Amino acid sequence: MIIILRPDASEQDAQEILQKIDTAGLKPLHMPGVERTVIGALGDERVLESLHLENLPQVDLVKPVLSKYKLVSREIYAQDTVVQVGNTPVGSEQFAIMAGPCAIESEEQLLETARYVKNAGATVLRGGAFKPRTSPYSFQGLGVEGLKIMSQVGKEVGLDTITELMDVNDLDDVARYISAIQIGARNMQNYTLLKAVGETQKPVLLKRGLSATIEELLLAAEYIVASGNPNVMICERGIRTFETATRNTLDLNAVAFIKERSHLPVIVDPSHGTGVRTLVSPMAKAAVACGADGVIVECHRSPKESVSDAAQALSPQDFHTLMQQLAPFVAASGRTLAEVARAS
Amino acid sequence: MIIILRPDASEQDAQEILQKIDTAGLKPLHMPGVERTVIGALGDERVLESLHLENLPQVDLVKPVLSKYKLVSREIYAQDTVVQVGNTPVGSEQFAIMAGPCAIESEEQLLETARYVKNAGATVLRGGAFKPRTSPYSFQGLGVEGLKIMSQVGKEVGLDTITELMDVNDLDDVARYISAIQIGARNMQNYTLLKAVGETQKPVLLKRGLSATIEELLLAAEYIVASGNPNVMICERGIRTFETATRNTLDLNAVAFIKERSHLPVIVDPSHGTGVRTLVSPMAKAAVACGADGVIVECHRSPKESVSDAAQALSPQDFHTLMQQLAPFVAASGRTLAEVARAS
Amino acid sequence: MIIILRPDASEQDAQEILQKIDTAGLKPLHMPGVERTVIGALGDERVLESLHLENLPQVDLVKPVLSKYKLVSREIYAQDTVVQVGNTPVGSEQFAIMAGPCAIESEEQLLETARYVKNAGATVLRGGAFKPRTSPYSFQGLGVEGLKIMSQVGKEVGLDTITELMDVNDLDDVARYISAIQIGARNMQNYTLLKAVGETQKPVLLKRGLSATIEELLLAAEYIVASGNPNVMICERGIRTFETATRNTLDLNAVAFIKERSHLPVIVDPSHGTGVRTLVSPMAKAAVACGADGVIVECHRSPKESVSDAAQALSPQDFHTLMQQLAPFVAASGRTLAEVARAS
Amino acid sequence: MIIILRPDASEQDAQEILQKIDTAGLKPLHMPGVERTVIGALGDERVLESLHLENLPQVDLVKPVLSKYKLVSREIYAQDTVVQVGNTPVGSEQFAIMAGPCAIESEEQLLETARYVKNAGATVLRGGAFKPRTSPYSFQGLGVEGLKIMSQVGKEVGLDTITELMDVNDLDDVARYISAIQIGARNMQNYTLLKAVGETQKPVLLKRGLSATIEELLLAAEYIVASGNPNVMICERGIRTFETATRNTLDLNAVAFIKERSHLPVIVDPSHGTGVRTLVSPMAKAAVACGADGVIVECHRSPKESVSDAAQALSPQDFHTLMQQLAPFVAASGRTLAEVARAS
Repeated sequence: MIIILRPDASEQDAQEILQKIDTAGLKPLHMPGVERTVIGALGDERVLESLHLENLPQVDLVKPVLSKYKLVSREIYAQDTVVQVGNTPVGSEQFAIMAGPCAIESEEQLLETARYVKNAGATVLRGGAFKPRTSPYSFQGLGVEGLKIMSQVGKEVGLDTITELMDVNDLDDVARYISAIQIGARNMQNYTLLKAVGETQKPVLLKRGLSATIEELLLAAEYIVASGNPNVMICERGIRTFETATRNTLDLNAVAFIKERSHLPVIVDPSHGTGVRTLVSPMAKAAVACGADGVIVECHRSPKESVSDAAQALSPQDFHTLMQQLAPFVAASGRTLAEVARAS
Repeated sequence: MIIILRPDASEQDAQEILQKIDTAGLKPLHMPGVERTVIGALGDERVLESLHLENLPQVDLVKPVLSKYKLVSREIYAQDTVVQVGNTPVGSEQFAIMAGPCAIESEEQLLETARYVKNAGATVLRGGAFKPRTSPYSFQGLGVEGLKIMSQVGKEVGLDTITELMDVNDLDDVARYISAIQIGARNMQNYTLLKAVGETQKPVLLKRGLSATIEELLLAAEYIVASGNPNVMICERGIRTFETATRNTLDLNAVAFIKERSHLPVIVDPSHGTGVRTLVSPMAKAAVACGADGVIVECHRSPKESVSDAAQALSPQDFHTLMQQLAPFVAASGRTLAEVARAS
Repeated sequence: MIIILRPDASEQDAQEILQKIDTAGLKPLHMPGVERTVIGALGDERVLESLHLENLPQVDLVKPVLSKYKLVSREIYAQDTVVQVGNTPVGSEQFAIMAGPCAIESEEQLLETARYVKNAGATVLRGGAFKPRTSPYSFQGLGVEGLKIMSQVGKEVGLDTITELMDVNDLDDVARYISAIQIGARNMQNYTLLKAVGETQKPVLLKRGLSATIEELLLAAEYIVASGNPNVMICERGIRTFETATRNTLDLNAVAFIKERSHLPVIVDPSHGTGVRTLVSPMAKAAVACGADGVIVECHRSPKESVSDAAQALSPQDFHTLMQQLAPFVAASGRTLAEVARAS
Repeated sequence: MIIILRPDASEQDAQEILQKIDTAGLKPLHMPGVERTVIGALGDERVLESLHLENLPQVDLVKPVLSKYKLVSREIYAQDTVVQVGNTPVGSEQFAIMAGPCAIESEEQLLETARYVKNAGATVLRGGAFKPRTSPYSFQGLGVEGLKIMSQVGKEVGLDTITELMDVNDLDDVARYISAIQIGARNMQNYTLLKAVGETQKPVLLKRGLSATIEELLLAAEYIVASGNPNVMICERGIRTFETATRNTLDLNAVAFIKERSHLPVIVDPSHGTGVRTLVSPMAKAAVACGADGVIVECHRSPKESVSDAAQALSPQDFHTLMQQLAPFVAASGRTLAEVARAS
């Protein structure tokens, strides 16, 4: 940690801080300069943080040297983590395809959608039972009934399943019926929720908050891992910027950056990341190219009847085309797609 | 609602949409143009939303004409709502001063802080018992023990109290011990929480999310009001932008904008809004000037010992100075400050 | 154009506006609603703009229906425009590779860099003679001397050339010595400059401003084309967002979006778009995958000696690796790379 | 300057860097840590910058300790600079009021506007002769003819004048006819222009770029001062954020921050900062309260006839009301308004 003193800090101010660092069992370093005095402190930065040196009036700035996340960092664990979502190994040589409707509307709707996404090459079925909606007047989801439908459909069609958890009180139900838990963007820093899923061993797909920095995203993942659950997948789903032509700005820089710093798998959501149906396919291909471990895509058997997010949902035909367009890029990246049971 | 068709949409496409609007009991309007056809639909936009016209392939854009919030709008209720936080009427002629430490650390710490903020003119004591922290390794708050301390201190010193609620399971405790509930920025769209506080009659201070638009903020307030609780105060506490010189960018435009459109009281948090101690006072004055109904300020009996957010906490002396500097601006705005019981 | 009146606008207000629209030779449409009156106006939106209906006190909002750019839009010209930069056809089946140092430092430096980028597969040499620098105390470039060096090196090695123009007074020199003109991000809305390059027939690479929307970017391109120069290439080079882990946020959504709406070629700059050397290669691959027509990459014969932007510059070995990694993705996209004259 | 090495950097890497620092005549400091080695370098950071230590492969991060601006900093000059715009002392006890139309449309229009803004208390007349317009199809201004009109009107009514300069070639004309030069937001980093106005002694109002950080804004000011012109006024006019309810987000934090760090006067533009007529007055009051030295406001004799920016222009009556509402806040801030020659 680097501590920069104010221009008017005295020699005694510096000595006082050096003393504090020493007392905490860390190694202080004195760097008196012409314009400012700089102090270094070496050792566990979490101990240093607890000293709250930034509170001292003679201190101008405290700059941490090390990243705050540990367990999710490649410095701790250099190899790629593979998270097993049912039969789908996420973070492996196999590029993961998760697909399905925004919301579970009925068994018939989900079943039909599940069949065609399976047929086109997906191995994980997505769909919301609990829907976070900006307006209190919008459709809020089927709840536990939706979870049961999804469980049933997943078994029938042969797909692993993922759904969003919004409330700790629904955790048991979601864990019972569904293969993997999604933490939505709005809840990325809902620490109650993070700790609760951290106390299970269920795979968790943690979506980046709309305005969360990469560091905050990795610290949110750290919450889950630190609570005991190593099965975390990071999801880039677009951030909020000034640009309004697209719903969000898909930050693929973040994918490459996180793959370099963290051992966790990274999934890209080109549906929410663009909000525009025709942009889903190009951005899914870009996700493969920049090193993502999979994509999660919204599809609907009939987008024009979808109750939510229809502008970005792919039709069965669109999804089939996407998978065909994706294939050469997956090959170029040295990965594979799951075998498709065309007979089903 | 305005529906803009794609350049290649046919006359039949237009007729199909006009028919849908008519069937829904609304009034369709046909506007065929040289380059595009535009269709209007008049009536309750919530009914229109349920048609999901944006899903139709021949539709390019659907633009709502009316704002989505109703209950919190001045179109429904033109006068200023006054929310009673204990004895403090927020939204009234009296400019509200809420102050206290970021976190409740001990009874002694809170009591000492409470005495001086009361003495300087605050009427509501703030302080966190449950702390949302970006890092899992940071101090997480005293929990229910903190609530009891705050309740005790509030009574002893004669201050109303406010604290953040993060988990629905803590609602009963918070409601029992504390005058008003704060919903933090990270939970602004935690709909489970919004509905839960909406089912009480407790005053709620709803903080704007880091990247929430004004419309989303008012829709979050609408969630609470629509659930049955009209006692909502909006809090502007800074948004996340590219600027890093300050912790956040305090959006005072939003204060003036919301005061114009909504009848709810608006509180400004210049501590989180700047993250810099020396900027708290100028921005508190600006808050008065642009029409806010009060401020919520972090103070600590000894900022250099604060366990969190120390860089922005005011010392007793700083807070006293702030109140003195604020007074002429409160007078200029035609408002008053609470009588200070100097004898205490 | 859609004109939404205030809730309190009268029937007479509406008639007044309808009259104005009619008088301007356009077709007015009256849509009286329960809560608001909406008025439509059909015809050339530029004529409508000149009416300044947004100025009328009874008008709440004016929403244009059509995009403001015309000449750069696929609605005017559906095929892909190919811009010829010397011998390099940008926007064609051949994926364009532009590479070179941030700044021209000396003939020796540029020549050595030019040789290895040519050898690895680039066909256009980039390098700055006039440098826009945030600090007045940083290196400002070699000026016209740099242009001459670049011209000489380009001929010697067999590369087309591109350099940034910052000042109209340097236009003649840049046009004389260099194949294509770059307009930098800071000058994207320097209309004096846009018009000046629009009066030549030189190929122009127009870089997106740090906070320019896609619409503003296309309107800036429209300035150049409307001034008479159709040879415009758009460059996505990252936008400014709240994220600080990377220098900018590369907005690949914009690439796919612009390719859909405009016929102009789109180049991606993964060097400025990330600011991090190790992220250049993954983002260049992503650029290919999402449909870009080429990349522009910073390379330096010895990055640790570069006078500017060294953190993002590739070494000769890095650039060679990038080209090897890029090749399978270019093939997957159905494009080609220029034949490399390995003998050179 | 603090240099943080990569985790795998060797002792020899560290020694090499320490040597470089020493050779440059600066003082190196070695801070070997458990996880990383940190190196300090004390002395003129501009010399350090020229070493480009960030280019070395074993270096992870280079963090400057000191701000990059010098001449505009209070560390160099502690008192407030007063810039004399004709007879108006900007940065003094007198709160400056600059007002006028967005664009100069005709002598009659400007004269009428000038009379009422003078009468209501303004001392500087603003108005554009050269207009930067996002669309090439919008009105581009009257040019030199507009400058002559403004000069004439200013003399006749008794107002100082300010207008935007976009092109170095117009500098002589602007300097001849007008009291102060405005550099617009789009040109904040047009270094050619900054240097050119820096070589005059004309007062310059430097507007913050839409996405410029405070540091970049002060460095742009530094360009002008370093070129020889100390008469610089900073203008906060709103930044671009995700919020779209207002045209821009007025960053008043920046005003308080700059007043603390720099001796230059700061002017606020609540017209562009909000883009909404009804928000101009509250934000002008907030500008006074947070320590600004003046405001620049768009007014038009008849906003509904304005050719540009009409949605934010005040009518004569609106402006009169603004001045009346401002007065008590100016008094509360301990400042004065210019004597109004009511007889005119």
